[in-house]
Amino acid sequence: MKFSYVTQLTCSKCSRAYSPDIVQQLCVCGSPLLVSYDFKTLAKMLKPSDLVKRKPDLWRYHELLPVKSPDRIVSLGEGMTPLLRMKKLGTDMALSQLYMKDEGLVPTGTFKARGAAVGVSKAKELGVKGLVMPTNGNAGAAWTLYSSRADIQAVIIMPKSAPAMIRSEVALANSQLYLVDGLISDAGKIAAKTAAEFNLYDVSTLKEPYRIEGKKTMGFEIAEQLGWSVPDVILYPAGGGVGLIAIYKALKELQELGWIDSNKMPRFVAVQAEGCAPIVKAWKEGKKESEFWPDSRTVAFGINVPKALGDFLVLEAIYETGGCAVAVNDEEILKEQEKMIRKEGAFICPEGAAAFLAARKLRKEGWIQEFEKVVVINTGTGLKYMGQEGAELPLLQPDERITRLQVLP
Amino acid sequence: MKFSYVTQLTCSKCSRAYSPDIVQQLCVCGSPLLVSYDFKTLAKMLKPSDLVKRKPDLWRYHELLPVKSPDRIVSLGEGMTPLLRMKKLGTDMALSQLYMKDEGLVPTGTFKARGAAVGVSKAKELGVKGLVMPTNGNAGAAWTLYSSRADIQAVIIMPKSAPAMIRSEVALANSQLYLVDGLISDAGKIAAKTAAEFNLYDVSTLKEPYRIEGKKTMGFEIAEQLGWSVPDVILYPAGGGVGLIAIYKALKELQELGWIDSNKMPRFVAVQAEGCAPIVKAWKEGKKESEFWPDSRTVAFGINVPKALGDFLVLEAIYETGGCAVAVNDEEILKEQEKMIRKEGAFICPEGAAAFLAARKLRKEGWIQEFEKVVVINTGTGLKYMGQEGAELPLLQPDERITRLQVLP
Repeated sequence: MKFSYVTQLTCSKCSRAYSPDIVQQLCVCGSPLLVSYDFKTLAKMLKPSDLVKRKPDLWRYHELLPVKSPDRIVSLGEGMTPLLRMKKLGTDMALSQLYMKDEGLVPTGTFKARGAAVGVSKAKELGVKGLVMPTNGNAGAAWTLYSSRADIQAVIIMPKSAPAMIRSEVALANSQLYLVDGLISDAGKIAAKTAAEFNLYDVSTLKEPYRIEGKKTMGFEIAEQLGWSVPDVILYPAGGGVGLIAIYKALKELQELGWIDSNKMPRFVAVQAEGCAPIVKAWKEGKKESEFWPDSRTVAFGINVPKALGDFLVLEAIYETGGCAVAVNDEEILKEQEKMIRKEGAFICPEGAAAFLAARKLRKEGWIQEFEKVVVINTGTGLKYMGQEGAELPLLQPDERITRLQVLP
Repeated sequence: MKFSYVTQLTCSKCSRAYSPDIVQQLCVCGSPLLVSYDFKTLAKMLKPSDLVKRKPDLWRYHELLPVKSPDRIVSLGEGMTPLLRMKKLGTDMALSQLYMKDEGLVPTGTFKARGAAVGVSKAKELGVKGLVMPTNGNAGAAWTLYSSRADIQAVIIMPKSAPAMIRSEVALANSQLYLVDGLISDAGKIAAKTAAEFNLYDVSTLKEPYRIEGKKTMGFEIAEQLGWSVPDVILYPAGGGVGLIAIYKALKELQELGWIDSNKMPRFVAVQAEGCAPIVKAWKEGKKESEFWPDSRTVAFGINVPKALGDFLVLEAIYETGGCAVAVNDEEILKEQEKMIRKEGAFICPEGAAAFLAARKLRKEGWIQEFEKVVVINTGTGLKYMGQEGAELPLLQPDERITRLQVLP
């Protein structure tokens, strides 16, 4: 048995192949690369029951992850988060089988840790010494902490509007943090320039192929926790949308292995905020890609992404599964969050609340039936959204670039 | 097979027996009650391998927990937190086998969730409708959230110096929060009066017998994660000290079951802050109980407990295992915390950092040997310690009592 059955990286648009043994970014055609595996061999070698004795973290699926050597794994114990029945909230929505996949119970408090664990582990395996990342906050915190553990230097760029707590979290760890007086899209442009100038690995969403592999373990876990079956509907708060793409990829992989029914796929729902709903707009118009959403804003800052590089993959997952895309209102998001905390004691984040709110709306409209099995992804703990004044940090303008890196202690 | 093998409650001082089927507080002699089980029968019925297929949460040990009916369980997915090797920090301390049990990865972000999960579940089983709790913060947050899920009304009383974030966490959930211009000991006095006046279950530390049962699962997990063996040393940041008492109880129970070597017990180390070290003082003086520590203060507010009701049980565990008690300095605690975050990417809390610092000191003094297996309990996520201004809340003086409860929405 090999530790990983990774074979190659494949372009999500033009299918061009790349080696997983050296650092890769986007395809020459400008599209994201996805990781391929040798499912044919693996289907013969591995059975679901082989997993039973493994540790309850995401590395239990190591054959389906890109890291080839177990001693390259950089782990803080991430994965196998609870799948919890939400009876009272379900009753309140007239849903008899409402579940929450709680991604608050991971290192750094959000599902971003999954992407960071696998992304940083693979970066370490590839010999990366430094990386740069634009972020709305949580991904930056996750990549910072895993990079610290891996002895990789991280440069993080986030909007100045990111929560102060996350700023402090990043600042305390072994990374260099820059704020930008703009959006994550502005941070992305600065990151690209910084990567080029300082020879850093640009780990912007989908510009590196491995974080999606970490996130797809949410899909493996949901299937395993439901006894190797899938729910009827999965609702996901979509900013960059990588988690949704990843869960969809995971379930297709499990179908290829014959571990779940190849005829049943959940309907995927991408949930966005009314103040930033490019994917919802594209879906309503039947388009394959979204357009940049100007002046985006929402309390659920993790989904404040005006244009996602992987939008076409999110839309593809929605179209192929008969899903949909829903925009919800900020004020109602906060009410849904409060309802969850008071009814179920689950301190979810606004993004998670947005997804629960979407479930409520879709049930009301009859798009979800009463007895369907519904899984909502809560992408992180609500604790990270409580305000606080942050440290003094360099502040960049959207059109500025980083001209000098600080020296690490 | 029964779901629980609980038999009775037994006084920790005078051995008087009580029924676990009705609400109990302290023994008539004023001492805490501990839960007893039928180990003789259970040893015949259950093997460690029976656990392998169970879910990775603390309810996997249900035979050794006091809740008799599975449908009374109030769970948010708590337990089976990672036991992580800390290689770089270990090298820095000249310890080759340094581990962290990371209790940041539980609902509400601290190990208090374990006590709350089992305590609230048992309270529900016993028909409790309302409870009152004095807290330094984290226990209050945990009991509040689990009580919300259980439809139990919670009244929480905490020092006004408790972190604002935890105040907000409690305030958002379905409970009534009061601040006190004093210490947890002052809050405790008010809680006792409130319990009597409003007929509430007083769930102060060790005044209810079940939270220790939840916390003892840390001990079960450490043993299971080490392949049903124990480390050489366990370091625990001790405020009330219940976690230490609980882990010790757990390991004794596993010895009774014959699941671990009955000749080996780890040396238990109670770690306190120099500004609040009653147990350290008692241990140095060879005493069986501690004295009230006046003007206590420390940045690690979770261990700011001037006099613990279970101090004699903590001291007993230390004496019986050849352990010790160590006081550490606030400034050094924060440095140790920063070192951990920067070296290992683990965002631990100051209490956890205090315990790591104690390991460093004991290694330096030669009390811990280089090749010994050392487990440090990080009691929660560092996220909860970041400052923030809180909501307007009623503020009580130490000698005040609650005269009127607010009406719940």
